[in-house]
Order: sequence, then C-alpha cells, then structure tokens
Amino acid sequence: MSALLLSTKPATMEVWRRELLALDPSLDIRLFPDTGPVEDIIAAVTWNHPPEDLYRYPNLRLLISMGAGVDHLFRPPGPPPGVAVVRLVDRLLTTAMSEYVLLAVLRHHRQDAGYRALQAARVWEELPAPDTEVTRIGIMGLGTLGGDAARKLRALGFRVAGWSRTPKALDGIETFSGPEALFPFLARTDILVCLLPLTPATEGIINARTLAALPRGAYLINAARGGHVVEEDLLAALDAGQISGAALDVFRTEPLPPDHPFWTHPKVIVTPHVASITIPRSVAPQVVENLARLREGRPLLNVVDVSVGY
Amino acid sequence: MSALLLSTKPATMEVWRRELLALDPSLDIRLFPDTGPVEDIIAAVTWNHPPEDLYRYPNLRLLISMGAGVDHLFRPPGPPPGVAVVRLVDRLLTTAMSEYVLLAVLRHHRQDAGYRALQAARVWEELPAPDTEVTRIGIMGLGTLGGDAARKLRALGFRVAGWSRTPKALDGIETFSGPEALFPFLARTDILVCLLPLTPATEGIINARTLAALPRGAYLINAARGGHVVEEDLLAALDAGQISGAALDVFRTEPLPPDHPFWTHPKVIVTPHVASITIPRSVAPQVVENLARLREGRPLLNVVDVSVGY
Ligand SMILES: NC(=O)c1ccc[n+]([C@@H]2O[C@H](COP(=O)([O-])OP(=O)(O)OC[C@H]3O[C@@H](n4cnc5c(N)ncnc54)[C@H](OP(=O)(O)O)[C@@H]3O)[C@@H](O)[C@H]2O)c1
Ligand SMILES: NC(=O)c1ccc[n+]([C@@H]2O[C@H](COP(=O)([O-])OP(=O)(O)OC[C@H]3O[C@@H](n4cnc5c(N)ncnc54)[C@H](OP(=O)(O)O)[C@@H]3O)[C@@H](O)[C@H]2O)c1
Repeated sequence: MSALLLSTKPATMEVWRRELLALDPSLDIRLFPDTGPVEDIIAAVTWNHPPEDLYRYPNLRLLISMGAGVDHLFRPPGPPPGVAVVRLVDRLLTTAMSEYVLLAVLRHHRQDAGYRALQAARVWEELPAPDTEVTRIGIMGLGTLGGDAARKLRALGFRVAGWSRTPKALDGIETFSGPEALFPFLARTDILVCLLPLTPATEGIINARTLAALPRGAYLINAARGGHVVEEDLLAALDAGQISGAALDVFRTEPLPPDHPFWTHPKVIVTPHVASITIPRSVAPQVVENLARLREGRPLLNVVDVSVGY
Repeated sequence: MSALLLSTKPATMEVWRRELLALDPSLDIRLFPDTGPVEDIIAAVTWNHPPEDLYRYPNLRLLISMGAGVDHLFRPPGPPPGVAVVRLVDRLLTTAMSEYVLLAVLRHHRQDAGYRALQAARVWEELPAPDTEVTRIGIMGLGTLGGDAARKLRALGFRVAGWSRTPKALDGIETFSGPEALFPFLARTDILVCLLPLTPATEGIINARTLAALPRGAYLINAARGGHVVEEDLLAALDAGQISGAALDVFRTEPLPPDHPFWTHPKVIVTPHVASITIPRSVAPQVVENLARLREGRPLLNVVDVSVGY
C-alpha cells in the first residue's frame, strides 16, 4: 500500500519512472494498466487518463497533472471528490512557451509571410516597416505562462495588455479582468494570444462574437487548448479578412485530422501541440516533493482550485 | 553659406527634409545633386553617396550617416581629412534589429523549417525538443545593436557570448575580445550572429576558416553587412552540412541578383536589407542636435573613430 500510479503513453511512462526513482528509489511506482491491488494507489501522475478510471482507487488522495494544464482531469466525471489536484509549474515549460509566443508574434509583426513570398519570387522589395511601439498585444490569461510572455513582449517594446479572472498588477502592462472587461480588452488588441486554462468559463471563448470585437486584420495565436476556439468561426473570420492569420498549436481534435482545413490554409501556421513539452527530469523534483508533503500532511505545491477548474 | 546637404534616394530625401525642418525651420537644406554653391555646404547627411563627391565642398566639417553603419562613408577615398563623422544611435533602430535577430534565432531553435515541412505534408509529428539552456549563441560585435540582442537573448534563457575589439563586461554574458579570442569564441557557438561594423579588420571575416571553427551544424545570422561574408565559402559550408542554415539580410551585391544561389537555397532565409530601417522622424532630433553642437563648437554625439572606421 501507498503506491504511485503513472499513466500516459508507454514510452513516456518509462522516462517518468526513471526520473522519479532517481530522486526517490523508495517509491513504489505502478504503470497503468498494471496497477496491482487498487487499494495500494494513493497518488496518480497522469496525462489524458480516462477520468472515470480514477474512481476505482479507494485510497487515492492526490492527482498530479503531467502538464501545466489540468483540463484532462476535469473531463466528466471530473476528479473524485476529496482528491487534491496539483499541476506543474516549471521554468523550462515557461521558457519554451514564451519562445513559441515570441516566434509567432515576431513572424507576424515582421511580415514574414510577405518576405517568404518575395524570396520565392526572387524579388528584392522592402515592405512597409512595422511599428513596434504602437502594436498592441493582448494576452488572455496572465498566469504562469501568460505573465512570462507578457513581460518578455513588453521588454521588446510592444504595447502589452492582459486579461485575467481576478485583478492583476504587472509593471508596464495594462490589465483587464472579469467578463465585463473582455470586450474592451479585445477592442485594443492587434495580436491576440490565448494562454487560458480550458474551463467551463473559457470553452469556446474565441468565437464569432469575440473575433468580431478585435480590430480588423488582427492576428490570433492559440497555444492553450483547442477547446478555446470555435474552429468554424475562426475559418470564417480568416476568409472574411477580419483575422489576418493565426498560429495554432492546439486543436479540437488532436492529432489534427488530415482533411482539416487548417493544414492547408495559407494564413494558418500549424504546430502539433509542441509549444511547451514537459521534460520529466525538470519536473520530477516537484512531484517527489509533493508526494513527501502528502505523506507528511504539509501544504502541497501548485494546487489547483477544484471549484474553478484550474 | 552654412547649408546642409542631403543625399539618398529622392523619395527618402523629401521625408528627411520635412522632419528636419519640422524641428528647425531655419535650416538651409539642399538635396543632392542641387547643392547650390559648393562653398555653402558645411554638413552632409548621406547614405551610399559617392565618396569622392564629398571632396568638392571646401567648407564641409561634418558627415552624418543616415544609418548606424558608416562603411559607405569609408569607401575609397574615405571621408575628406579633418571632417568629423557621426552615425545614428536610435532606440527604434536597436529595437528593430533585436526583433530581426530574435525571429531568426527562434525560427531555427524551434525547428521551424521542420514544422513547416510537416504542415505542408499534413503530418502531425513531434520533433525532438530543443534545449534552450544549452544552446550557445555567439554575437560578433557587442556594440549598440549586438549588446541589446545579447541581453534580450540572455533574458530568454540562452547561453550567450559576445566578441568585440576591446574588452567588455555584460551581466550574464560571456565576453571575448581581440583577434586571438575569435577562434575560442567560435568553437563554443551554435548560433552565430554577426552585428559587426564593416571595416578593413572585419571584411570577409565569415569565411571557410571561421565557418570550419564552429561546431558542425551551427547556424549563421548576418544582419550586419554583406562584405562580412565570403559568400562562396558559406555556400560550400551549407552544402557540406558544416552550417545547417543561414538567415541573411545583407549581401555583397544589393539588390541580390536574381540568379544568386541564396534566393533558392533551401537552407537560406533571405530578407532585402530590412532588419532595421532608419525612421527619419525618430532620428531627426539627434541630427538637429549635432548641427547645433557643430555651430556652437560643443562635443558631437555618436562620433565615429575615423582611425578604426566605426
Ligand atoms: N500548447 C502547449 O504546449 C501548452 C503547454 C502548457 C500549458 N498550456 C496551456 O496553457 C494554460 C495556461 O497555463 P498557466 O500555467 O499559465 O496557467 P495559470 O498559471 O493557472 O494561469 C491561468 C490564467 O488564466 C486566467 N483565467 C482563468 N480563467 C479565466 C476566466 N474565466 N476569465 C479570465 N481569465 C481567466 C487566470 O486568471 P487569474 O490570474 O485571475 O487566476 C490566470 O491568469 C494551461 O492551462 C494549458 O491549457 C499549453
Ligand atoms: N541590416 C540592417 O538593417 C542594419 C541596420 C543597422 C546597422 N547594421 C549594421 O550593424 C553594425 C553594428 O551597429 P552598432 O550600432 O551595434 O555598432 P557599434 O555600436 O559601433 O558596435 C560595433 C561592435 O563591433 C565591435 N567590433 C568592431 N570592430 C571589431 C573587430 N575588428 N573585432 C572585433 N569586434 C569589433 C565593436 O567592438 P568595441 O565594443 O570594442 O568597439 C563593437 O562591439 C553597423 O555597423 C551596420 O553595419 C545593419
């Protein structure tokens, strides 16, 4: 009794097991579906695990997400009542996400699509220069990832605003909070970056109405979850010119189906959910630490508020 | 007498005249080749002006470059003896150059060529994740532009070093200086960024020998001057796989000739000398200030050391 359940793709589970045992060789680790007696399991580290399965372990007390996001744990029926939920907060995860966002912002801002087309045509021609100081970036979600991206974009000289659930203060960044601030926030945003968690309050938040509230020709970057975007609405806004382009790392259905229009849309950059990938070695210490805290009854790290779902 | 000569493309000259007059309506501005009596000219603001022409103005005392670089003023026969030379140092010029460098670095670092090819083939596949903390960027030239790019790349978590003529100290950045430090600097550099001025000491500095001193598969970013690169040597290093790719904004011959192999090389990103474009409105105040200092005999701003050529 007192075992840890791992559940994700088999090859990844092996890496996780190795990194956790390197830090604490006394851990009793079970790889799903080889759980052993269900009574043994007191904690689970999972990614895209069938949520109903977690109701089978009577002594389960802690769920640890293998990523920064926990929406996979809140799919119906959601985490079993009384079980604590924690997520990962990790410097490398944050660094990688900000790289993804900066690359997407700079590619658009520096008219890269135009310059790639000119190179293909072997045409030497200067395009109108972008003006960084009047380019308004708006970040939905000002948490670990959104906050870091906001600060780094601000340091490059952009005008940056952020939108969050509760009020926030960040140096040099205009902040908006709550549903009533969403439309004013969108109205001043030329490049919209979504770094929200996926919850009932944010599902489908990028839709015909919100896209129409952006200035004409705005650009969209979604590195949060596919469920944030109503994909048909985005396609319509792209084709109408309301949205000038989009960089998308996440999709309603992953892998993105081969016949999905995003793959071949000339204004869409597709990446296969790789904006920020968890590196087990980097996050193993916080997992081992949380297991120790669980055993000793001390407060856990990176706790998710089960009532709001992130 | 006491007139200011402007010389560049006609449309650009008109913008410069307007911005300068807006700040000082008393300026007597002449647009080349309509100089009026050559005795009138005491200062010249130029870009790619024929250098020998500047010997025709007996009262010329100050040459102002329309950009950060002054190599165009040092082409034979060079600036007339006794004439002071100044260049532009400008926040927007610096911001734009760092954007160019960050875009090129992140594009390479995040395997963008690979992900673009996967999108074209509609293949959902994760490529091995890059490790920012062990990726070593080396910046040749740690002046106004190189120093800013170095700081911004460091803030993203890269390992950054810089190479300059005289010793420098920058927080969190490894520094190398002088010819004897060049090869040690190259040996530790995965992504080489050239932000040197073009001088007799730096002409052709990116050549077969220096490219071979980089680790195999290194990437090159040149946003300084085409004259820094021996283009046949770079093509050979690309084709041999010693260099994995290059982002080039500047070339030996500009516009890049339509039959030049860079245009169609699958590993080369070409932009038409647009990494950082002077915005006359932004730089007009320092030009007007330097003209006032010249009149009043006060020390000039952003003075070029004529003995070293930058
Ligand atoms: N594509 C990838 O590779 C990848 C990798 C990692 C993470 N992600 C995604 O990124 C998301 C964000 O991660 P994080 O670590 O930054 O999360 P976080 O620290 O929990 O931050 C979430 C932010 O969203 C705000 N928010 C939540 N609900 C909201 C609502 N209804 N209205 C307005 N704002 C709301 C929060 O507001 P408060 O500040 O007021 O709480 C907070 O600022 C994850 O949930 C995950 O889905 C994607
Ligand atoms: N592509 C574009 O759109 C564009 C736009 C603007 C500028 N540029 C180019 O960028 C260049 C750099 O501009 P900047 O304002 O940063 O110039 P800067 O402030 O004068 O800095 C030049 C740097 O290069 C170093 N350096 C000069 N000669 C050297 C040598 N022989 N060996 C080693 N290091 C040497 C200097 O060393 P010390 O610090 O020891 O003096 C200094 O660190 C310009 O000259 C121009 O050619 C290109």
